[in-house]
Amino acid sequence: MPLSAEQQAEIDEQRSQPGQTLRAVSPGMEQHLYKAQPVLDHGFVRVIDYMGDDAAICQAARVSYGRGTKSVQNDEGLIRYLMRHWHSTPFEMCEIKLHVKLPVFVARQWIRHRTANVNEYSARYSILDREFYIPAPEHINAQSVVNNQGRGGVLEGDEAARVLEILKADSHRCYDNYEQMISQDGQDGLARELARMNLPANVYTQWYWKVDLHNLFHFLRLRADAHAQYEIRVYADAICAMVADWVPAAYRAFEDYRLGGATMSGKALDCVRRMLKGEEVTQETSGMSKGEWREFQGVLNDPA
Amino acid sequence: MPLSAEQQAEIDEQRSQPGQTLRAVSPGMEQHLYKAQPVLDHGFVRVIDYMGDDAAICQAARVSYGRGTKSVQNDEGLIRYLMRHWHSTPFEMCEIKLHVKLPVFVARQWIRHRTANVNEYSARYSILDREFYIPAPEHINAQSVVNNQGRGGVLEGDEAARVLEILKADSHRCYDNYEQMISQDGQDGLARELARMNLPANVYTQWYWKVDLHNLFHFLRLRADAHAQYEIRVYADAICAMVADWVPAAYRAFEDYRLGGATMSGKALDCVRRMLKGEEVTQETSGMSKGEWREFQGVLNDPA
Amino acid sequence: MPLSAEQQAEIDEQRSQPGQTLRAVSPGMEQHLYKAQPVLDHGFVRVIDYMGDDAAICQAARVSYGRGTKSVQNDEGLIRYLMRHWHSTPFEMCEIKLHVKLPVFVARQWIRHRTANVNEYSARYSILDREFYIPAPEHINAQSVVNNQGRGGVLEGDEAARVLEILKADSHRCYDNYEQMISQDGQDGLARELARMNLPANVYTQWYWKVDLHNLFHFLRLRADAHAQYEIRVYADAICAMVADWVPAAYRAFEDYRLGGATMSGKALDCVRRMLKGEEVTQETSGMSKGEWREFQGVLNDPA
Amino acid sequence: MPLSAEQQAEIDEQRSQPGQTLRAVSPGMEQHLYKAQPVLDHGFVRVIDYMGDDAAICQAARVSYGRGTKSVQNDEGLIRYLMRHWHSTPFEMCEIKLHVKLPVFVARQWIRHRTANVNEYSARYSILDREFYIPAPEHINAQSVVNNQGRGGVLEGDEAARVLEILKADSHRCYDNYEQMISQDGQDGLARELARMNLPANVYTQWYWKVDLHNLFHFLRLRADAHAQYEIRVYADAICAMVADWVPAAYRAFEDYRLGGATMSGKALDCVRRMLKGEEVTQETSGMSKGEWREFQGVLNDPA
Repeated sequence: MPLSAEQQAEIDEQRSQPGQTLRAVSPGMEQHLYKAQPVLDHGFVRVIDYMGDDAAICQAARVSYGRGTKSVQNDEGLIRYLMRHWHSTPFEMCEIKLHVKLPVFVARQWIRHRTANVNEYSARYSILDREFYIPAPEHINAQSVVNNQGRGGVLEGDEAARVLEILKADSHRCYDNYEQMISQDGQDGLARELARMNLPANVYTQWYWKVDLHNLFHFLRLRADAHAQYEIRVYADAICAMVADWVPAAYRAFEDYRLGGATMSGKALDCVRRMLKGEEVTQETSGMSKGEWREFQGVLNDPA
Repeated sequence: MPLSAEQQAEIDEQRSQPGQTLRAVSPGMEQHLYKAQPVLDHGFVRVIDYMGDDAAICQAARVSYGRGTKSVQNDEGLIRYLMRHWHSTPFEMCEIKLHVKLPVFVARQWIRHRTANVNEYSARYSILDREFYIPAPEHINAQSVVNNQGRGGVLEGDEAARVLEILKADSHRCYDNYEQMISQDGQDGLARELARMNLPANVYTQWYWKVDLHNLFHFLRLRADAHAQYEIRVYADAICAMVADWVPAAYRAFEDYRLGGATMSGKALDCVRRMLKGEEVTQETSGMSKGEWREFQGVLNDPA
Repeated sequence: MPLSAEQQAEIDEQRSQPGQTLRAVSPGMEQHLYKAQPVLDHGFVRVIDYMGDDAAICQAARVSYGRGTKSVQNDEGLIRYLMRHWHSTPFEMCEIKLHVKLPVFVARQWIRHRTANVNEYSARYSILDREFYIPAPEHINAQSVVNNQGRGGVLEGDEAARVLEILKADSHRCYDNYEQMISQDGQDGLARELARMNLPANVYTQWYWKVDLHNLFHFLRLRADAHAQYEIRVYADAICAMVADWVPAAYRAFEDYRLGGATMSGKALDCVRRMLKGEEVTQETSGMSKGEWREFQGVLNDPA
Repeated sequence: MPLSAEQQAEIDEQRSQPGQTLRAVSPGMEQHLYKAQPVLDHGFVRVIDYMGDDAAICQAARVSYGRGTKSVQNDEGLIRYLMRHWHSTPFEMCEIKLHVKLPVFVARQWIRHRTANVNEYSARYSILDREFYIPAPEHINAQSVVNNQGRGGVLEGDEAARVLEILKADSHRCYDNYEQMISQDGQDGLARELARMNLPANVYTQWYWKVDLHNLFHFLRLRADAHAQYEIRVYADAICAMVADWVPAAYRAFEDYRLGGATMSGKALDCVRRMLKGEEVTQETSGMSKGEWREFQGVLNDPA
């Protein structure tokens, strides 16, 4: 369970105190506020704050004075148009602030998205908790043999057991030694900023992360993708569910044009045109490399 | 008057519909929401949305679960500490969205601050209104003789009258011709994206501008400064008044450490140390250039 | 002619002084250095400096110690892979610095690309030259009747003549009055920061603009596009020609995957799959709006 | 020794092949190119590329056509003026690209500076080396008792020995198990993207890091500061030495106005003014908190 009773009580207290505001309110998002959505074995995502809604995207695109008298249907059409034509600035007018608890090796991937604001829990200042990500058996995979940057089938039997054993034992030994080094019981105690270097990358950290909707969509497109590492994809999936409730029309456009869409090269488009005219196109006649052709076939055949 | 009756009605309607939210609410900022604060002769600033308050800055700095049980006094101390030590990320956790109407030559300075989100009214798509900035007589100044980049005394008499006459006449003639060129009355009508090039830089434009509090403070430090051009400074001043109501503790820290503070060079600090020991330091013995010494004297003497 | 004899002499002098360096050198780009490529009637683009070449993209992607022993062919394959999979960071490892002279209304579009560094000629500090963009007759178009944000056919006859007459007359009158207001002949002279507001948006400005290759490609994809305004597209086209000489492999990948490619939505991909199976798909059965369908047909049919 | 013989050979080969260029060349920086400057026990910093020099800063500030005919002395004066008045854009016109090898816990601090470009060695794709940071005995410090975020005195005797023993033993055990898990000898081998989670934060990683001079100065001001953690400060110090050779005038201005300077609050300035008039100011009469007063005293007394 990712939250202590005390933490849950703080959250419950915050949720019990609605206030009045003149700002745009997203009813779907209010349902999520502050609640911790569990991810992995000790992690979570929770919404701390948000700015704007679907109407705010249109209001900014129109630089209008009020919320606009346009219908919801018109708004959805405008949002689809903006998404299709890469008009990104109106989507930047919505903002979200999340509190995320996540393993350090996931945090290291996540932080590569630079157009966001971050406050991370400081292990120079504070002591980290004894919480480590230990994968569930169904997520312990072999190195992929086709993709140097991915995983293959699930490990089974003794090998999986050995991996689990190692991860657990090393995590706990390292943490025991971390505690021992910083202890001020009968000794001075090592500086926290040094002791933390003994903790492996599956230790959990946490941060506040704030990002605008355009950059969030960019993050989600890359990290909710099937090629993303499983351990970050589950966070992206959890956030997708929240965004779908926050800005439903924008999320539908994102699903259609980004998550469910694909970019085709000039060569690929040329092949499609030839195929539609009845030509039998092969990798050899396509002008594409084998890798590109395989990916192109994936796009044409995959009903996902 | 910067707003039409219709626009004012849209604003009034928005202000008449409070909603419920679980988010942090800043009572001081709710007072400002949507209202247009007049700036210059046709411009304004109005708050469209905001995220966070003083407590949210501390909550992010502490990566806490609830609003925190710390007292308001502790929060102010933390905010001052963060500002003093250039810990900027907690201030980035607050966000504001403004609707601004401003002359194009002001917009051109403003946009140089890149860490913000902008949606500008499109003169490719729409027709601009006949609204031009004409300075009040007390803001028509001569070129400065000491600062190549500033203004000197107020122009008087005939010269001022001629300037006003020119600005008014050229604005209107250019706008008359703009209208004539795009007119589809008896002719095809020039494309808007071309016709706009005939409008001078005192024509008004408008945009939605969204920025986090840290970057807003950076903007305000430069643009609410005495060396900023008057026509952008009045916008910065108007925003300062709103921020003081939105995040009072953060604004007080900003006033003390940024607006009212000064950066001293190593040479300047050395001089201060010597002067405190009783030494009579002059420009010649200071190691500073004449310009630096003049600015240093300004810092030491200016009670502002 | 955009350059004075004195300016040309400064450029010639710089080009006459080669130096030795251990850095990566792009022979194709050295040919362009400092030379002004004319754009529009008074504008230009010239390369002031660059960092990196095709090999530098691969070197960064591999985090390698030397220039790498990989073949040029392998490098091109890697570059295509990186472009296809949106691995943008290696392209960010190349940088270019341009000196651009351009009309203010073009500069206002250009500056919306925020991930770049800019130093603009200051009209607070200096006096602008009497140089205005006056379109050639073949670029004076009517407002489009199908696209609110574009131009239609070329204006002809009297209407075109009137437009040209207006643009020339208003430019010169505004500049005459600008000169008159700042003149210190028998008067104090209006501050430059104020006088500039009388100049229309076709006056030329200039700046140094520095950007990394990834963000430059993003700029070029949007601004070398057929839907971009002609007056900025000609700058993008001039830069494309330089980039093709600077990083030939990266530019070829950019042409194939970005300029010549297209993004298809989930709905569009579904239609392609159905059409390839022999189904006759219409707008009604496609699930797309009329606008989307028209754009989709454009992608399928356009051999460009 | 941070480099293998093979890596050293690649570097030597690159340094043996000077080329001709028309670009600005910094002789001081050419000396550094490609060479690895050792930092900590296995780390290094080396310059891969650079753009610009002191003259390029002035050239951009003046938006000039050639290298400028102004004297070196004038250039230094302009650079000092720009630095003093926070005109940051001309400094952004210089760029540097570094290859850095550093422990992961240092990399995690470093990456918080977002306005830079990064390509990190991928532990999803590749296998990390058995290299861990083990502090020298004189850098094993106790937790500070006055600053929650710093270190106090050096640990001595048994306690220091125990810390060293733990860090070495845990690093090697974790690496042994990492190797064992990914081994494909008699088993499938765990995916690298998973196995890496067993490695502690003192394992070395490496990246290419590219940044402009303005943002580099910002990084150096924070990280070459006495309050920065020792393990990142040594990297900042190594970079400072390179920058001093690259852009000597800009570095001197940075030393005077940033590294050796201090920001004083309005309250602090008020105290200085009163003290210069002979008043005996105490913490009680200063209006400052105890912490602020202590820091203020540090600025006034510290001859560093």
